Amino acid sequence: MKLYDYLPSGNGYKVRLLLKQLGIPFQLTQMNLVKGETRTEEFLTMNPNGKIPTLILPSGDILTESNAIILYLAEGTRFLPEDKLMRARVNEWLFFEQYSHEPNIAVVRTWKALGDLDELQTATLPQKMANGYNALDVMEKQLQTSDYLVGNSYSVADIALYAYTHVAHEGGFDLSNYPGINNWMQRIKNQDQYIPITDDCQN
Amino acid sequence: MKLYDYLPSGNGYKVRLLLKQLGIPFQLTQMNLVKGETRTEEFLTMNPNGKIPTLILPSGDILTESNAIILYLAEGTRFLPEDKLMRARVNEWLFFEQYSHEPNIAVVRTWKALGDLDELQTATLPQKMANGYNALDVMEKQLQTSDYLVGNSYSVADIALYAYTHVAHEGGFDLSNYPGINNWMQRIKNQDQYIPITDDCQN
Repeated sequence: MKLYDYLPSGNGYKVRLLLKQLGIPFQLTQMNLVKGETRTEEFLTMNPNGKIPTLILPSGDILTESNAIILYLAEGTRFLPEDKLMRARVNEWLFFEQYSHEPNIAVVRTWKALGDLDELQTATLPQKMANGYNALDVMEKQLQTSDYLVGNSYSVADIALYAYTHVAHEGGFDLSNYPGINNWMQRIKNQDQYIPITDDCQN
Repeated sequence: MKLYDYLPSGNGYKVRLLLKQLGIPFQLTQMNLVKGETRTEEFLTMNPNGKIPTLILPSGDILTESNAIILYLAEGTRFLPEDKLMRARVNEWLFFEQYSHEPNIAVVRTWKALGDLDELQTATLPQKMANGYNALDVMEKQLQTSDYLVGNSYSVADIALYAYTHVAHEGGFDLSNYPGINNWMQRIKNQDQYIPITDDCQN
Protein backbone atom coordinates (compact mmCIF):
# COMPACT_ATOMS: atom_id res chain seq x y z
CA MET A 1 0.00 0.00 0.00
CA LYS A 2 1.05 3.57 -0.61
CA LEU A 3 -0.07 6.40 1.69
CA TYR A 4 0.00 10.09 0.81
CA ASP A 5 0.12 11.88 4.13
CA TYR A 6 1.31 14.91 6.13
CA LEU A 7 2.82 13.97 9.47
CA PRO A 8 1.21 16.75 11.59
CA SER A 9 -2.25 15.67 10.36
CA GLY A 10 -4.42 13.77 12.84
CA ASN A 11 -6.49 12.55 9.88
CA GLY A 12 -3.37 10.95 8.41
CA TYR A 13 -2.32 9.64 11.82
CA LYS A 14 -5.56 7.63 12.09
CA VAL A 15 -4.55 5.63 9.02
CA ARG A 16 -0.86 5.26 10.04
CA LEU A 17 -1.80 4.06 13.54
CA LEU A 18 -4.31 1.51 12.25
CA LEU A 19 -1.97 0.20 9.52
CA LYS A 20 0.75 -0.22 12.15
CA GLN A 21 -1.60 -2.01 14.56
CA LEU A 22 -2.85 -4.26 11.76
CA GLY A 23 0.75 -5.11 10.80
CA ILE A 24 0.30 -3.83 7.25
CA PRO A 25 3.48 -2.31 5.80
CA PHE A 26 3.12 0.76 3.60
CA GLN A 27 5.15 3.28 1.68
CA LEU A 28 4.67 6.87 2.83
CA THR A 29 4.83 9.91 0.58
CA GLN A 30 4.82 13.12 2.55
CA MET A 31 2.80 15.97 1.05
CA ASN A 32 3.43 19.47 2.33
CA LEU A 33 -0.07 20.94 2.70
CA VAL A 34 1.27 24.39 3.46
CA LYS A 35 3.06 24.43 0.11
CA GLY A 36 -0.14 23.33 -1.70
CA GLU A 37 1.25 19.96 -2.75
CA THR A 38 -2.22 18.36 -2.65
CA ARG A 39 -3.63 20.95 -5.06
CA THR A 40 -1.45 20.02 -8.06
CA GLU A 41 -3.12 18.65 -11.18
CA GLU A 42 -1.38 15.31 -10.63
CA PHE A 43 -2.67 14.93 -7.07
CA LEU A 44 -6.19 16.13 -7.95
CA THR A 45 -6.37 13.34 -10.54
CA MET A 46 -6.00 10.87 -7.66
CA ASN A 47 -8.19 12.76 -5.21
CA PRO A 48 -10.42 15.49 -6.71
CA ASN A 49 -11.00 16.92 -3.23
CA GLY A 50 -7.22 17.52 -2.84
CA LYS A 51 -6.81 16.09 0.65
CA ILE A 52 -4.60 13.72 2.59
CA PRO A 53 -4.71 10.96 3.67
CA THR A 54 -5.05 9.29 0.29
CA LEU A 55 -4.35 5.55 0.20
CA ILE A 56 -3.43 3.50 -2.87
CA LEU A 57 -4.41 -0.16 -2.46
CA PRO A 58 -2.36 -3.00 -3.97
CA SER A 59 -5.12 -3.27 -6.62
CA GLY A 60 -4.43 0.34 -7.63
CA ASP A 61 -7.78 1.49 -6.26
CA ILE A 62 -7.54 4.84 -4.47
CA LEU A 63 -9.26 5.51 -1.14
CA THR A 64 -9.88 8.96 0.36
CA GLU A 65 -11.51 10.39 3.53
CA SER A 66 -9.67 9.23 6.66
CA ASN A 67 -12.71 7.70 8.34
CA ALA A 68 -13.79 5.84 5.18
CA ILE A 69 -10.23 4.49 4.90
CA ILE A 70 -10.06 3.19 8.48
CA LEU A 71 -13.53 1.59 8.18
CA TYR A 72 -12.33 -0.20 5.02
CA LEU A 73 -9.09 -1.40 6.64
CA ALA A 74 -10.82 -2.47 9.86
CA GLU A 75 -13.48 -4.63 8.17
CA GLY A 76 -13.23 -8.19 9.49
CA THR A 77 -10.68 -7.28 12.21
CA ARG A 78 -10.93 -6.68 15.97
CA PHE A 79 -10.99 -2.93 15.29
CA LEU A 80 -14.59 -3.01 13.99
CA PRO A 81 -17.44 -4.90 15.70
CA GLU A 82 -19.62 -7.33 13.73
CA ASP A 83 -22.89 -6.47 15.46
CA LYS A 84 -25.09 -4.13 13.42
CA LEU A 85 -25.98 -1.78 16.29
CA MET A 86 -22.36 -1.63 17.49
CA ARG A 87 -21.28 -0.76 13.95
CA ALA A 88 -23.84 2.05 13.94
CA ARG A 89 -22.31 3.31 17.21
CA VAL A 90 -18.85 3.35 15.56
CA ASN A 91 -20.30 5.27 12.61
CA GLU A 92 -22.00 7.77 14.93
CA TRP A 93 -18.63 8.60 16.52
CA LEU A 94 -16.88 8.84 13.13
CA PHE A 95 -19.44 11.31 11.76
CA PHE A 96 -19.42 13.20 15.07
CA GLU A 97 -15.64 13.46 14.73
CA GLN A 98 -15.75 14.94 11.25
CA TYR A 99 -18.63 17.35 11.92
CA SER A 100 -18.50 18.40 15.59
CA HIS A 101 -14.90 17.71 16.69
CA GLU A 102 -12.32 18.07 13.89
CA PRO A 103 -13.59 21.39 12.39
CA ASN A 104 -13.16 22.97 15.81
CA ILE A 105 -10.36 21.20 17.70
CA ALA A 106 -8.15 20.35 14.72
CA VAL A 107 -8.71 23.60 12.87
CA VAL A 108 -7.76 25.77 15.86
CA ARG A 109 -4.60 23.65 16.33
CA THR A 110 -3.66 24.18 12.67
CA TRP A 111 -4.26 27.93 12.88
CA LYS A 112 -1.99 28.21 15.92
CA ALA A 113 0.70 26.02 14.33
CA LEU A 114 0.85 28.33 11.32
CA GLY A 115 1.51 31.49 13.37
CA ASP A 116 -0.56 34.49 14.35
CA LEU A 117 -4.27 34.30 13.62
CA ASP A 118 -5.65 36.66 11.00
CA GLU A 119 -8.65 38.92 11.66
CA LEU A 120 -11.31 36.45 10.52
CA GLN A 121 -9.73 33.56 12.46
CA THR A 122 -9.58 35.74 15.58
CA ALA A 123 -13.27 36.63 15.18
CA THR A 124 -14.21 32.96 14.66
CA LEU A 125 -12.05 31.59 17.48
CA PRO A 126 -14.51 31.96 20.41
CA GLN A 127 -17.20 29.93 18.61
CA LYS A 128 -14.65 27.27 17.56
CA MET A 129 -13.40 26.98 21.16
CA ALA A 130 -16.97 26.71 22.52
CA ASN A 131 -17.88 24.08 19.91
CA GLY A 132 -14.65 22.19 20.65
CA TYR A 133 -15.38 22.08 24.38
CA ASN A 134 -18.92 20.94 23.62
CA ALA A 135 -17.49 18.03 21.61
CA LEU A 136 -15.15 17.16 24.48
CA ASP A 137 -18.14 17.26 26.87
CA VAL A 138 -19.99 14.73 24.68
CA MET A 139 -16.94 12.41 24.70
CA GLU A 140 -16.44 12.82 28.46
CA LYS A 141 -20.06 11.83 29.11
CA GLN A 142 -19.52 8.53 27.28
CA LEU A 143 -16.06 7.88 28.76
CA GLN A 144 -17.41 8.33 32.30
CA THR A 145 -19.44 5.17 31.70
CA SER A 146 -17.21 3.00 29.47
CA ASP A 147 -13.48 2.38 28.95
CA TYR A 148 -13.74 2.85 25.18
CA LEU A 149 -16.20 4.74 23.00
CA VAL A 150 -18.08 1.68 21.67
CA GLY A 151 -18.85 -1.62 23.33
CA ASN A 152 -15.99 -1.46 25.84
CA SER A 153 -13.32 -2.54 23.40
CA TYR A 154 -10.78 -0.57 21.40
CA SER A 155 -12.06 0.19 17.88
CA VAL A 156 -11.60 2.60 15.00
CA ALA A 157 -13.98 4.94 16.85
CA ASP A 158 -11.26 5.38 19.49
CA ILE A 159 -8.55 5.82 16.85
CA ALA A 160 -10.57 8.49 15.03
CA LEU A 161 -11.39 10.52 18.15
CA TYR A 162 -7.95 10.10 19.74
CA ALA A 163 -6.17 11.57 16.70
CA TYR A 164 -7.03 15.20 17.42
CA THR A 165 -8.06 14.91 21.09
CA HIS A 166 -4.56 13.97 22.22
CA VAL A 167 -3.11 17.10 20.58
CA ALA A 168 -6.02 19.40 21.48
CA HIS A 169 -3.77 21.27 23.96
CA GLU A 170 -1.70 22.48 20.99
CA GLY A 171 -4.78 24.50 19.99
CA GLY A 172 -5.18 25.87 23.51
CA PHE A 173 -7.79 23.41 24.83
CA ASP A 174 -7.40 22.63 28.54
CA LEU A 175 -8.24 18.96 29.17
CA SER A 176 -7.50 18.95 32.90
CA ASN A 177 -11.21 18.79 33.78
CA TYR A 178 -11.82 15.72 31.62
CA PRO A 179 -10.76 12.70 33.71
CA GLY A 180 -12.68 10.22 31.55
CA ILE A 181 -10.89 11.45 28.42
CA ASN A 182 -7.47 11.45 30.13
CA ASN A 183 -7.85 7.87 31.39
CA TRP A 184 -9.06 6.78 27.94
CA MET A 185 -6.08 8.45 26.23
CA GLN A 186 -3.75 6.54 28.55
CA ARG A 187 -5.52 3.27 27.65
CA ILE A 188 -4.90 4.03 23.98
CA LYS A 189 -1.22 4.83 24.54
CA ASN A 190 -0.96 1.39 26.20
CA GLN A 191 -2.27 -0.49 23.14
CA ASP A 192 0.04 -2.91 21.33
CA GLN A 193 1.93 -1.31 18.46
CA TYR A 194 0.96 2.21 19.50
CA ILE A 195 2.91 4.90 17.63
CA PRO A 196 3.04 8.65 18.23
CA ILE A 197 1.64 11.05 15.60
CA THR A 198 5.17 11.96 14.48
CA ASP A 199 6.03 8.37 13.44
CA ASP A 200 6.23 7.80 9.69
CA CYS A 201 6.51 3.97 10.12
CA GLN A 202 9.16 3.81 7.40
CA ASN A 203 11.77 1.58 9.06
CA MET B 1 -39.82 3.84 14.88
CA LYS B 2 -39.94 7.37 16.19
CA LEU B 3 -38.07 10.20 14.47
CA TYR B 4 -37.20 13.54 16.04
CA ASP B 5 -36.75 15.92 13.15
CA TYR B 6 -37.05 19.47 11.81
CA LEU B 7 -38.68 19.64 8.40
CA PRO B 8 -36.34 22.26 6.82
CA SER B 9 -33.32 20.08 7.72
CA GLY B 10 -31.64 18.22 4.88
CA ASN B 11 -30.05 15.93 7.47
CA GLY B 12 -33.51 14.96 8.68
CA TYR B 13 -34.79 14.66 5.11
CA LYS B 14 -32.16 11.96 4.36
CA VAL B 15 -33.76 9.74 7.00
CA ARG B 16 -37.37 10.56 6.03
CA LEU B 17 -36.69 9.87 2.35
CA LEU B 18 -34.97 6.54 3.04
CA LEU B 19 -37.64 5.37 5.52
CA LYS B 20 -40.32 6.21 2.92
CA GLN B 21 -38.45 4.37 0.16
CA LEU B 22 -37.90 1.36 2.44
CA GLY B 23 -41.62 1.35 3.30
CA ILE B 24 -40.95 1.71 7.03
CA PRO B 25 -43.66 3.70 8.82
CA PHE B 26 -42.56 6.08 11.56
CA GLN B 27 -43.93 8.61 14.00
CA LEU B 28 -42.49 12.11 13.54
CA THR B 29 -41.91 14.58 16.36
CA GLN B 30 -41.00 18.01 15.07
CA MET B 31 -38.34 19.86 17.06
CA ASN B 32 -38.02 23.59 16.48
CA LEU B 33 -34.25 24.14 16.33
CA VAL B 34 -34.62 27.91 16.29
CA LYS B 35 -36.43 27.75 19.64
CA GLY B 36 -33.68 25.52 21.11
CA GLU B 37 -35.94 22.50 21.51
CA THR B 38 -32.99 20.10 21.01
CA ARG B 39 -31.02 21.71 23.86
CA THR B 40 -33.46 20.80 26.65
CA GLU B 41 -32.30 18.46 29.41
CA GLU B 42 -34.82 15.86 28.26
CA PHE B 43 -33.57 15.87 24.67
CA LEU B 44 -29.88 15.91 25.67
CA THR B 45 -30.50 12.72 27.66
CA MET B 46 -31.44 11.04 24.36
CA ASN B 47 -28.76 12.75 22.26
CA PRO B 48 -25.94 14.46 24.21
CA ASN B 49 -24.91 16.34 21.05
CA GLY B 50 -28.37 17.96 20.88
CA LYS B 51 -29.07 17.40 17.20
CA ILE B 52 -31.76 16.12 14.90
CA PRO B 53 -32.35 13.69 13.29
CA THR B 54 -32.54 11.36 16.28
CA LEU B 55 -34.21 8.00 15.64
CA ILE B 56 -35.70 5.69 18.28
CA LEU B 57 -35.70 2.07 17.12
CA PRO B 58 -38.47 -0.38 18.11
CA SER B 59 -35.94 -1.87 20.60
CA GLY B 60 -35.69 1.52 22.31
CA ASP B 61 -32.10 2.00 21.10
CA ILE B 62 -31.42 5.57 20.00
CA LEU B 63 -29.51 6.42 16.82
CA THR B 64 -27.96 9.80 16.01
CA GLU B 65 -25.94 11.34 13.13
CA SER B 66 -27.93 11.35 9.89
CA ASN B 67 -25.36 9.44 7.87
CA ALA B 68 -24.89 6.77 10.57
CA ILE B 69 -28.68 6.38 10.67
CA ILE B 70 -29.09 5.90 6.91
CA LEU B 71 -26.17 3.42 6.82
CA TYR B 72 -27.88 1.42 9.58
CA LEU B 73 -31.26 1.45 7.86
CA ALA B 74 -29.79 0.61 4.44
CA GLU B 75 -27.82 -2.45 5.59
CA GLY B 76 -28.98 -5.50 3.61
CA THR B 77 -31.12 -3.44 1.21
CA ARG B 78 -30.63 -2.21 -2.36
CA PHE B 79 -29.60 1.19 -0.98
CA LEU B 80 -26.18 -0.07 0.18
CA PRO B 81 -23.88 -2.25 -1.95
CA GLU B 82 -22.48 -5.52 -0.55
CA ASP B 83 -19.05 -5.20 -2.16
CA LYS B 84 -16.36 -3.98 0.26
CA LEU B 85 -14.80 -1.43 -2.12
CA MET B 86 -18.23 -0.11 -3.17
CA ARG B 87 -19.14 0.31 0.51
CA ALA B 88 -15.94 2.31 0.98
CA ARG B 89 -17.01 4.53 -1.93
CA VAL B 90 -20.38 5.14 -0.23
CA ASN B 91 -18.57 6.01 3.01
CA GLU B 92 -16.20 8.38 1.17
CA TRP B 93 -19.20 10.34 -0.12
CA LEU B 94 -20.91 10.37 3.28
CA PHE B 95 -17.83 11.78 5.04
CA PHE B 96 -17.26 14.21 2.17
CA GLU B 97 -20.85 15.37 2.65
CA GLN B 98 -20.45 16.07 6.36
CA TYR B 99 -17.02 17.72 6.09
CA SER B 100 -16.79 19.48 2.71
CA HIS B 101 -20.42 19.96 1.59
CA GLU B 102 -22.88 20.42 4.48
CA PRO B 103 -20.83 22.94 6.55
CA ASN B 104 -20.75 25.22 3.52
CA ILE B 105 -23.86 24.64 1.40
CA ALA B 106 -26.29 23.83 4.21
CA VAL B 107 -24.95 26.39 6.65
CA VAL B 108 -25.23 29.28 4.17
CA ARG B 109 -28.81 28.20 3.38
CA THR B 110 -29.68 28.21 7.09
CA TRP B 111 -28.14 31.65 7.62
CA LYS B 112 -30.16 33.08 4.74
CA ALA B 113 -33.36 31.41 5.94
CA LEU B 114 -33.01 33.05 9.35
CA GLY B 115 -32.75 36.59 7.99
CA ASP B 116 -29.96 39.10 7.54
CA LEU B 117 -26.43 37.81 8.13
CA ASP B 118 -24.55 39.16 11.14
CA GLU B 119 -21.06 40.66 10.84
CA LEU B 120 -19.16 37.41 11.40
CA GLN B 121 -21.38 35.46 8.98
CA THR B 122 -20.88 38.18 6.37
CA ALA B 123 -17.10 37.97 6.82
CA THR B 124 -17.15 34.16 6.59
CA LEU B 125 -19.53 33.98 3.61
CA PRO B 126 -16.99 34.27 0.75
CA GLN B 127 -14.97 31.29 2.03
CA LYS B 128 -18.15 29.25 2.62
CA MET B 129 -19.32 29.99 -0.93
CA ALA B 130 -15.93 29.07 -2.41
CA ASN B 131 -15.80 25.84 -0.40
CA GLY B 132 -19.37 25.03 -1.41
CA TYR B 133 -18.63 25.48 -5.11
CA ASN B 134 -15.51 23.34 -4.68
CA ALA B 135 -17.71 20.56 -3.23
CA LEU B 136 -20.12 20.90 -6.17
CA ASP B 137 -17.15 20.69 -8.56
CA VAL B 138 -16.08 17.38 -6.97
CA MET B 139 -19.61 15.98 -7.35
CA GLU B 140 -19.89 17.23 -10.94
CA LYS B 141 -16.64 15.50 -11.88
CA GLN B 142 -18.08 12.15 -10.69
CA LEU B 143 -21.54 12.73 -12.20
CA GLN B 144 -20.04 13.51 -15.60
CA THR B 145 -18.91 9.86 -15.70
CA SER B 146 -21.69 7.96 -13.88
CA ASP B 147 -25.46 8.25 -13.39
CA TYR B 148 -25.18 7.88 -9.62
CA LEU B 149 -22.37 8.60 -7.16
CA VAL B 150 -21.41 4.97 -6.52
CA GLY B 151 -21.48 1.97 -8.83
CA ASN B 152 -24.13 3.35 -11.17
CA SER B 153 -27.05 2.55 -8.91
CA TYR B 154 -29.05 4.69 -6.50
CA SER B 155 -27.70 4.37 -2.94
CA VAL B 156 -27.58 6.21 0.38
CA ALA B 157 -24.62 8.17 -1.05
CA ASP B 158 -27.07 9.80 -3.47
CA ILE B 159 -29.65 10.41 -0.73
CA ALA B 160 -27.03 12.06 1.51
CA LEU B 161 -25.64 14.38 -1.17
CA TYR B 162 -29.02 15.17 -2.70
CA ALA B 163 -30.43 16.43 0.60
CA TYR B 164 -28.63 19.77 0.60
CA THR B 165 -27.62 19.96 -3.08
CA HIS B 166 -31.22 20.21 -4.29
CA VAL B 167 -31.85 23.21 -2.03
CA ALA B 168 -28.41 24.83 -2.54
CA HIS B 169 -30.03 27.65 -4.54
CA GLU B 170 -31.80 28.74 -1.34
CA GLY B 171 -28.33 29.67 -0.05
CA GLY B 172 -27.50 31.54 -3.25
CA PHE B 173 -25.59 28.80 -5.08
CA ASP B 174 -26.06 28.87 -8.86
CA LEU B 175 -26.19 25.32 -10.22
CA SER B 176 -26.80 26.23 -13.86
CA ASN B 177 -23.24 25.30 -14.84
CA TYR B 178 -23.51 21.81 -13.36
CA PRO B 179 -25.27 19.64 -15.97
CA GLY B 180 -24.12 16.38 -14.36
CA ILE B 181 -25.60 17.40 -11.03
CA ASN B 182 -28.84 18.63 -12.61
CA ASN B 183 -29.39 15.40 -14.55
CA TRP B 184 -28.60 13.36 -11.42
CA MET B 185 -31.09 15.39 -9.34
CA GLN B 186 -33.78 14.64 -11.93
CA ARG B 187 -32.94 10.90 -11.72
CA ILE B 188 -33.43 11.07 -7.96
CA LYS B 189 -36.77 12.89 -8.26
CA ASN B 190 -37.86 10.04 -10.56
CA GLN B 191 -37.17 7.31 -7.97
CA ASP B 192 -40.09 5.27 -6.59
CA GLN B 193 -41.58 6.71 -3.41
CA TYR B 194 -39.69 9.99 -3.79
CA ILE B 195 -40.90 12.68 -1.37
CA PRO B 196 -40.04 16.38 -1.22
CA ILE B 197 -38.12 17.76 1.78
CA THR B 198 -41.33 19.33 3.15
CA ASP B 199 -43.14 15.96 3.49
CA ASP B 200 -43.56 14.74 7.08
CA CYS B 201 -44.83 11.30 5.89
CA GLN B 202 -47.51 11.30 8.57
CA ASN B 203 -50.56 10.22 6.60
